[in-house]
Amino acid sequence: MAKRVFLVIGAGAGIGGHTAGRFARGGYHAVLARRSDEAGLTKLVEGIQEQGGKATGTLLDAAADGTIEELIDRVERDIGPIHTVLYNLGAQIGNRTLADTPHRTFELGWRLGCFGLFRLAHAVTPHMAARDNGTILVTSATAAVRGNAGQHSHAAAMGGRRMLCQTLNAEFAPQGVHVAHVVVDGSVDAPDTLGKLLGERFEAYKQAKGVDGVVDPAALAETYWHLAHQPRNCWSHEVDVRPYTDVPWWNDNPNPGIDTKPK
Amino acid sequence: MAKRVFLVIGAGAGIGGHTAGRFARGGYHAVLARRSDEAGLTKLVEGIQEQGGKATGTLLDAAADGTIEELIDRVERDIGPIHTVLYNLGAQIGNRTLADTPHRTFELGWRLGCFGLFRLAHAVTPHMAARDNGTILVTSATAAVRGNAGQHSHAAAMGGRRMLCQTLNAEFAPQGVHVAHVVVDGSVDAPDTLGKLLGERFEAYKQAKGVDGVVDPAALAETYWHLAHQPRNCWSHEVDVRPYTDVPWWNDNPNPGIDTKPK
Amino acid sequence: MAKRVFLVIGAGAGIGGHTAGRFARGGYHAVLARRSDEAGLTKLVEGIQEQGGKATGTLLDAAADGTIEELIDRVERDIGPIHTVLYNLGAQIGNRTLADTPHRTFELGWRLGCFGLFRLAHAVTPHMAARDNGTILVTSATAAVRGNAGQHSHAAAMGGRRMLCQTLNAEFAPQGVHVAHVVVDGSVDAPDTLGKLLGERFEAYKQAKGVDGVVDPAALAETYWHLAHQPRNCWSHEVDVRPYTDVPWWNDNPNPGIDTKPK
Amino acid sequence: MAKRVFLVIGAGAGIGGHTAGRFARGGYHAVLARRSDEAGLTKLVEGIQEQGGKATGTLLDAAADGTIEELIDRVERDIGPIHTVLYNLGAQIGNRTLADTPHRTFELGWRLGCFGLFRLAHAVTPHMAARDNGTILVTSATAAVRGNAGQHSHAAAMGGRRMLCQTLNAEFAPQGVHVAHVVVDGSVDAPDTLGKLLGERFEAYKQAKGVDGVVDPAALAETYWHLAHQPRNCWSHEVDVRPYTDVPWWNDNPNPGIDTKPK
Repeated sequence: MAKRVFLVIGAGAGIGGHTAGRFARGGYHAVLARRSDEAGLTKLVEGIQEQGGKATGTLLDAAADGTIEELIDRVERDIGPIHTVLYNLGAQIGNRTLADTPHRTFELGWRLGCFGLFRLAHAVTPHMAARDNGTILVTSATAAVRGNAGQHSHAAAMGGRRMLCQTLNAEFAPQGVHVAHVVVDGSVDAPDTLGKLLGERFEAYKQAKGVDGVVDPAALAETYWHLAHQPRNCWSHEVDVRPYTDVPWWNDNPNPGIDTKPK
Repeated sequence: MAKRVFLVIGAGAGIGGHTAGRFARGGYHAVLARRSDEAGLTKLVEGIQEQGGKATGTLLDAAADGTIEELIDRVERDIGPIHTVLYNLGAQIGNRTLADTPHRTFELGWRLGCFGLFRLAHAVTPHMAARDNGTILVTSATAAVRGNAGQHSHAAAMGGRRMLCQTLNAEFAPQGVHVAHVVVDGSVDAPDTLGKLLGERFEAYKQAKGVDGVVDPAALAETYWHLAHQPRNCWSHEVDVRPYTDVPWWNDNPNPGIDTKPK
Repeated sequence: MAKRVFLVIGAGAGIGGHTAGRFARGGYHAVLARRSDEAGLTKLVEGIQEQGGKATGTLLDAAADGTIEELIDRVERDIGPIHTVLYNLGAQIGNRTLADTPHRTFELGWRLGCFGLFRLAHAVTPHMAARDNGTILVTSATAAVRGNAGQHSHAAAMGGRRMLCQTLNAEFAPQGVHVAHVVVDGSVDAPDTLGKLLGERFEAYKQAKGVDGVVDPAALAETYWHLAHQPRNCWSHEVDVRPYTDVPWWNDNPNPGIDTKPK
Repeated sequence: MAKRVFLVIGAGAGIGGHTAGRFARGGYHAVLARRSDEAGLTKLVEGIQEQGGKATGTLLDAAADGTIEELIDRVERDIGPIHTVLYNLGAQIGNRTLADTPHRTFELGWRLGCFGLFRLAHAVTPHMAARDNGTILVTSATAAVRGNAGQHSHAAAMGGRRMLCQTLNAEFAPQGVHVAHVVVDGSVDAPDTLGKLLGERFEAYKQAKGVDGVVDPAALAETYWHLAHQPRNCWSHEVDVRPYTDVPWWNDNPNPGIDTKPK
């Protein structure tokens, strides 16, 4: 049995994979779960192992009943105690008008963006609370704090997710479980999510953003590592990250009209 | 056909009923929809009619597929154009630990608290946008802006609702549709919701709060009336209300320890 | 002696003047204070009187020691009890780099934007609390909730002002004093402030914004009237207003890049 | 000349001293500035030197004109380039009614809490921007995000400070300067600030909070170290910390009435 386990749900080649690698280098047994692309998963797991780390991969349909629950049970039973779990599933589908957002799309957004985290918490908090120790990291998005045009499904899911992080923290912090909600307020160099969303335009997009213009998932992994190891007398609950070239969500994007619109 | 219609989904004897009465006095045909208690509904409708107002009542299971959609179609076709709709369904179930919040409870909270508003918007915004005019009022709760212990289901639903109000506003304000999210940050003198939640303790609770210690739904109805009639050059989107005796959600409740915990 | 007085500090031809007119029509004796332009002030006062209202004008250098305090004393002694006071002084100076924001500019911004409200509250709350009744309306700006580039002086002053409104409300709401902080999140058709800031460009600016593209101060005056007359069981503390064509501060301004920057 | 300098303004035995020690261990020359207690300052500096670090101490009246400016010049000229500066001055004076908050108290709160940071930024950003590199860490308080009863001076100062951090970030992030605003939402084991505020009650207070019930400044120093070394593609701007036993500011403190006040 491993001494302590890091589990990530949503283990693509971006944030999930890099954070798994970081925790494996730090001595954790990393368990990587993702929905599809077994070859990609194997590549991530073997990459960690080649660097001397311990890792296990598993395919998982997080939207299906019982899957997350079964995974938690299996890891706790067969691999080791989960010290840190990263819920890394997004629900971004690009900008769509309300008319172009069917009921089933809105519901699926909620299943992945909000309900899945609820199910994960249901399954993992009893283990963590019993040990008086554990961390739940949640990758979140700007849509958790403001609802832009076209983001009906995404923002409703993420807004629910953020409030859920607060209620989880309110109940479980006194039981030793640290819940951290991280607003990634910028684009990430993530081939499996943004890369697939943009397709051929991905490289040109990154070029246009310039050097350090998109979040390096390895950098974000260091922040996750830091959060998961804050002593319990000094826990952060809500953290934001963005590239230095990006305007924070609360600021206007600069535009030619700004000089004539004093606020 | 009525010249303009006010529709409320969630028409109990508290906020919904009083707001319907206020709009009826202002010349609107009020349509009141609620889930159950036909006798209570009839009483509200007849009360409005006795004061010379126009009102129609209908029972509606908002959580069931197609119901809200059918209602919107029916009202627009048979009664008149919906100028203002009030989404007044809550999802408060009291404080429950995560272990005591089953999956189906969490999902039902979302269906009533968030998905129902999405369905309503889907159905009503085409009518409103076509007329370049309309108001969607949303009764919301403190749980939309912070997640207290025990509020997993409620806060996740309300947090999603708030972000959805922002995305709806972002898309539809330029099309003449005013979306206002109202955080009711205090108890309401509402026999059909808080009254039922507290049961026999309701009267004692109100006594303990003192004169003007709970929100009078007639007072809130005036604020809803005001919001629905703001000229489009001066729209409010996020508004809070509470009794003067209540501590706003962002402040601590005063406690004996406050003098020794400087922040 | 008047039965009840409405006092506005910062009575230009925009928000201040229109709100004074609204309260005078509602039966208040309106007291209008502004820094300069006695002719403009007289015009406002006579305009109210010609419509049958009661009004008094006074010039006031709000940044100078003792001025606000003396005014409160004088009004309470000679005119009547102040029911509602509107603190309507802005501190917007346009966008300036830090290097172009001298120490004295930053300090003056604070004197007008934050310290003046503190002085006003010091002077007026004893009167209001003794009567267990009163309203302090505060015209605020987007800069109270987010700090854009170039807004060092303005945002620091307004951020302090917003927190001060919260501490005032926390102390004085239980004593019957209603403090309402109103974020005017858009341009106002105010000849004495925005008009002077933009100069000759003002008319072209309004044209470019289109019909209802800037806040009509008469419309905002109605919202102030509503807030000042909410029963104490249903007070709003933080309210925002903007034209329907403006993007709320929490949303991005739409730009060509938005499709390629999913958040 | 040192290769890189860490400067702290407000270097007591708590956050300031521990962060200086952390950066000295990381290879920085630490410059510690505080208002008084030369013996205490010498002890901190010698403590760092005994562990093999480099440190310099200086007494500084931050509220006086020109002092911060002169210090920045002197450090840049005589010691080395400032990589990270920590503005660690508080303005907490305990809870006081408005009547018990004189004008000069409110002004002093602003001078230390807000204006001092403005002056620091004025002096240090030209150096940092010229190098396209630098970090400004700001220790902040819960009062920056909400105004509790009795906090008039403190909250107005901190609310201004937070907005100033946002405007500084908006202007200087694109120039390579990272501004991080850290809300310390709990008590800190700081003998020179909280210790002096509570006096003899300090030890009993810490006992009552329990193990890990107050923030260990050494733990916070690690978070500051992490923030100062985030790659510029992944900067955090607003971060909160608190002990696991403390209720976050956005949650109610649990009280007996919570079951009967559903929100």
